Amino acid sequence: MAEEKKVIRDTDDDARILARKLIAEANFGAIAVQEPDTGVPLVSRVAIATDPEGRPIFLASELSIHSKCLAKNNKCSVLLGEPGKGDPLAHPRITLICNAVIIERKSEERDRLRDPYLEQHPKAKLYIDFGDFQFYRLEIERANLNGGFGKAYALTAEDFAVNP
Amino acid sequence: MAEEKKVIRDTDDDARILARKLIAEANFGAIAVQEPDTGVPLVSRVAIATDPEGRPIFLASELSIHSKCLAKNNKCSVLLGEPGKGDPLAHPRITLICNAVIIERKSEERDRLRDPYLEQHPKAKLYIDFGDFQFYRLEIERANLNGGFGKAYALTAEDFAVNP
Repeated sequence: MAEEKKVIRDTDDDARILARKLIAEANFGAIAVQEPDTGVPLVSRVAIATDPEGRPIFLASELSIHSKCLAKNNKCSVLLGEPGKGDPLAHPRITLICNAVIIERKSEERDRLRDPYLEQHPKAKLYIDFGDFQFYRLEIERANLNGGFGKAYALTAEDFAVNP
Repeated sequence: MAEEKKVIRDTDDDARILARKLIAEANFGAIAVQEPDTGVPLVSRVAIATDPEGRPIFLASELSIHSKCLAKNNKCSVLLGEPGKGDPLAHPRITLICNAVIIERKSEERDRLRDPYLEQHPKAKLYIDFGDFQFYRLEIERANLNGGFGKAYALTAEDFAVNP
């Protein structure tokens, strides 16, 4: 436990603000899901957007591997925050530990998300209305924030609930 | 199964070449590991390099969350291939399903990897010799290759064993 204390800092408003910034600016991310038959943690790419309340969402085909895994176990995590130049480990990023919740295809909520999603991902107009595509909302349970070397934080759902 | 056939293409040399290219060009990736106490698939960033044989390796602190998870279960997957402009889902990427094998800190193999790693990650000279940093080799079991929309392939270890 003493070792944990050395590497995880106390969460402050700067950490909460950085966490929100990483979510707000994300255009894509890496989602980790559990492969049903093997238990293997599988990572793949998802296009990320935010709903009008600023909560992360993504659009995926139900034929995709991650959709099939999420249908069996919707517990997942998503890495957001892309490196620029230099050491990739020096750039801020966040791992959101979430439940991925399907937005019903024929629902007001789906219709409400369609235009904001297309504003963030205009090329998705090619497939957003395909019958196998659906939105997921990422309901955040906790998060591991890494602001760069030596700047690690463990955030709770409460850290995302109020504006810092 | 008929549905699987529709979405997974037969692996050909073009797919094998793309897979090698994504590994050779990777500077960083997203690793998914299993969190020991919860079973949650956790994704985080790793800096990626290749050994002189072209196999993927990474350097990590044993204090990092992914190192602690790998110490309990070294089965993992790594996403390589970064999007450029436009739709992030239109860009090629690969998920390598692997065993992450620690390279002993005081070994000839570790010494052999040090300079090639620093050539690919010069900024790592700041911490590569720290006592808590160690190399991992990613031993590939299979891979999910996505060459862009509708171009999905399932690769085996054999697809990486010979030059296409």
